[in-house]
Amino acid sequence: MDKTFKEESTSVSRREFFKRTASVSAVAAASILAPGTLLADDPNIMHHTKWGTSLGDECNYNPYGLPSKYEHNVVRRTSALMSSAGDMHAAISMTPLHEQQGIITPSGLHFTRTHNGVAHIDPNKFRLMIHGLVEKPIVLTLEQLKRYPSETKILFLECPSNGAAEWKGPQFGSLQFVRGMMSCSEWTGVRLSVILEDLGLKPTAKWMLAEGSDGSEMSRTLPVEKVLDDCMLVYAQNGEALRDEQGYPVRLMAPGWEANLCVKWLKRLEFGDKPWYAKEETSKYTALTASGKAIQHFYALETNSVITSPCPEKPWTDLKVGDLVEIEGLAWSGHGTVRGVDLSFDGGKNWIEASLKGLVLPKAWTRFSYMYKYEGKPLLLQSRSYDDSDNVQPTVNQEKAVVGVEGVYHRNAIHTWAVDAKGEVTNVQIRS
Amino acid sequence: MDKTFKEESTSVSRREFFKRTASVSAVAAASILAPGTLLADDPNIMHHTKWGTSLGDECNYNPYGLPSKYEHNVVRRTSALMSSAGDMHAAISMTPLHEQQGIITPSGLHFTRTHNGVAHIDPNKFRLMIHGLVEKPIVLTLEQLKRYPSETKILFLECPSNGAAEWKGPQFGSLQFVRGMMSCSEWTGVRLSVILEDLGLKPTAKWMLAEGSDGSEMSRTLPVEKVLDDCMLVYAQNGEALRDEQGYPVRLMAPGWEANLCVKWLKRLEFGDKPWYAKEETSKYTALTASGKAIQHFYALETNSVITSPCPEKPWTDLKVGDLVEIEGLAWSGHGTVRGVDLSFDGGKNWIEASLKGLVLPKAWTRFSYMYKYEGKPLLLQSRSYDDSDNVQPTVNQEKAVVGVEGVYHRNAIHTWAVDAKGEVTNVQIRS
Repeated sequence: MDKTFKEESTSVSRREFFKRTASVSAVAAASILAPGTLLADDPNIMHHTKWGTSLGDECNYNPYGLPSKYEHNVVRRTSALMSSAGDMHAAISMTPLHEQQGIITPSGLHFTRTHNGVAHIDPNKFRLMIHGLVEKPIVLTLEQLKRYPSETKILFLECPSNGAAEWKGPQFGSLQFVRGMMSCSEWTGVRLSVILEDLGLKPTAKWMLAEGSDGSEMSRTLPVEKVLDDCMLVYAQNGEALRDEQGYPVRLMAPGWEANLCVKWLKRLEFGDKPWYAKEETSKYTALTASGKAIQHFYALETNSVITSPCPEKPWTDLKVGDLVEIEGLAWSGHGTVRGVDLSFDGGKNWIEASLKGLVLPKAWTRFSYMYKYEGKPLLLQSRSYDDSDNVQPTVNQEKAVVGVEGVYHRNAIHTWAVDAKGEVTNVQIRS
Repeated sequence: MDKTFKEESTSVSRREFFKRTASVSAVAAASILAPGTLLADDPNIMHHTKWGTSLGDECNYNPYGLPSKYEHNVVRRTSALMSSAGDMHAAISMTPLHEQQGIITPSGLHFTRTHNGVAHIDPNKFRLMIHGLVEKPIVLTLEQLKRYPSETKILFLECPSNGAAEWKGPQFGSLQFVRGMMSCSEWTGVRLSVILEDLGLKPTAKWMLAEGSDGSEMSRTLPVEKVLDDCMLVYAQNGEALRDEQGYPVRLMAPGWEANLCVKWLKRLEFGDKPWYAKEETSKYTALTASGKAIQHFYALETNSVITSPCPEKPWTDLKVGDLVEIEGLAWSGHGTVRGVDLSFDGGKNWIEASLKGLVLPKAWTRFSYMYKYEGKPLLLQSRSYDDSDNVQPTVNQEKAVVGVEGVYHRNAIHTWAVDAKGEVTNVQIRS
């Protein structure tokens, strides 16, 4: 993770950072740790609580554990603006990305998009029909599905309208509301190619319909090439059974593609020689272009990124000039693996490279990081990701030239946080 | 993951497996899918429920989500046998490993070991004192700790007495009770070396005392080499704040070493030139040997493995002769990265190699897998792991020669499940 940064005026290498704070400058050391109280100043500071003087709760007071009561504000949030005519059965709840650490989203905080509510399916009554252009159509129980060898992958899921709210305003002063329609989990299930090798896919099969058993009977069509490449039928998320909100007991997983294609509460897969043009892939989930025509069969989510610290919920108002602070963010690409992320402090005029840190996996969130020396002056903070398929996040103008201004899906233009002289962070949209 | 196995009589490669079931043998195909009902037999089978005919719950009915009500049996479990004189403040609750998928344990199911109960610490009152042989002793708030650059790693945690219950009997007929004192999570925090570079560690500092603020004021000593190598102060687990049971708001993380060293509810770190010999590292957490003497300063958990499917909770009673079934398990090593796992079907006389699957990371759980053709005859199933430091899991006799029969810590001998002719699985201990 050590890294010598390019722009020496406002940044330092991690190694140099601690050299300066620890050995070279007592002032710099105070700046990272202030207002820390040195032990010598107050030897009794550790005795202000009754820690260690009483029994806690019994070991297994909660056989299925929950967050600390002090974390009660870290929850999924929703807004009537993100529902269909105010109906919270067809709505979105968003992940608190400003509190997200690492790349695993706790299942309890995974974003939710429902089209007619959250279904609760009895796993003993679960049946999955696989039929159409296959040699041996079948109806599977959950037990039978789990008899196939399993596969586990860390993958992001993103609603293709993530960020749409900020596109045509109002602009939310909140990372959670601006980008919270995405999460990243460890998913376990069965490769569809493995089941299809068993059932025998007919050569004429070109498309697959996936149908859910929720109130909307969500239906989407996928090309067989994708199905055979890496699609999975997943029954576990982050080590345990799927949550109801994520399609318990089985959902489709199309890695890197629109979350809407990853049909929840799955009940039927049908193979055919034409796409189905279901409701949710004609009136919606197509990409409107500047010409007024919509692009269909537009599935993979583009390379994208967002700065998660600072953000409106995590401002820099406690920093003093000269303080060193870590800028962090998330990058992802439905086309493959994130190769790098650039940062700009001036709205895109100049760029420097951030470090990737932790696991860097295909079609998964990737964390980026940069140690920055705070100057107390206004900034226009941007991040720009690129992936191993040579995709680069476009500017807003580059994006507008392709998809115009009306469409709400697949918008991955570079995002901007404005940081003012006091360290407050607001959501702005730079149109150049 | 494709692999040609060595023992052709009872196993097939994954590729061959599906060739046989799909194309070569209709009987074999039926064997993996039976008793599946083909669509042609009952076209109305999908209409037995009211799926898709009603609204579900509103989108954000649960701002912090929970498992499906149908998963109510997947919980941590405890036993009076695993407590100190029946006091459930000093006890252990175990992870349901038989339901574990992938390598991330849901935080709600992470095993718990408490010595005087679970503490609930107000993060605003949290203070961490770092003192002793450092140039600048300090008391940190949580906010100040989080100002340091973060690091994220997937790491297992294991109680050094995991498996001890089966060593001297009674032998539990349960994977959860036999090996459930371990879990694996994504942890985020700050490297201790980074903070110590800031505070200035004196050359005379050789040991670190870590002290918790729970009712037991848990105290353990670690050598400075380990502290500087990879120890962390972690404040997040699986993407969110630590749970109370895991030491909220901050615990020590010593990757690959005894979980007991990873002191929870941390309040103090002191550096000195001698070990402290605290209560929990003299009377306990030392390794009794055959000579009657105990080994102190015995920290890293050995290379180890266990078969998780089949197991007593997941028997093979539904299989028919000729069925193909996946054997799965977990391997881990506190010394580094798992390099491979061998399987035996005859109690250790003959061995074949399993496949590793998914992420293979240092000091993290690693999954192994093997496709097996069920023969309906009794088996003595064993797994044997080896790591990149050339450690190999010992037999029971090899282990006894070193640590005798009395000690309950650091036992990593090869474990055996007996599978009977009906597919029932019991826990047996092969003493040869």
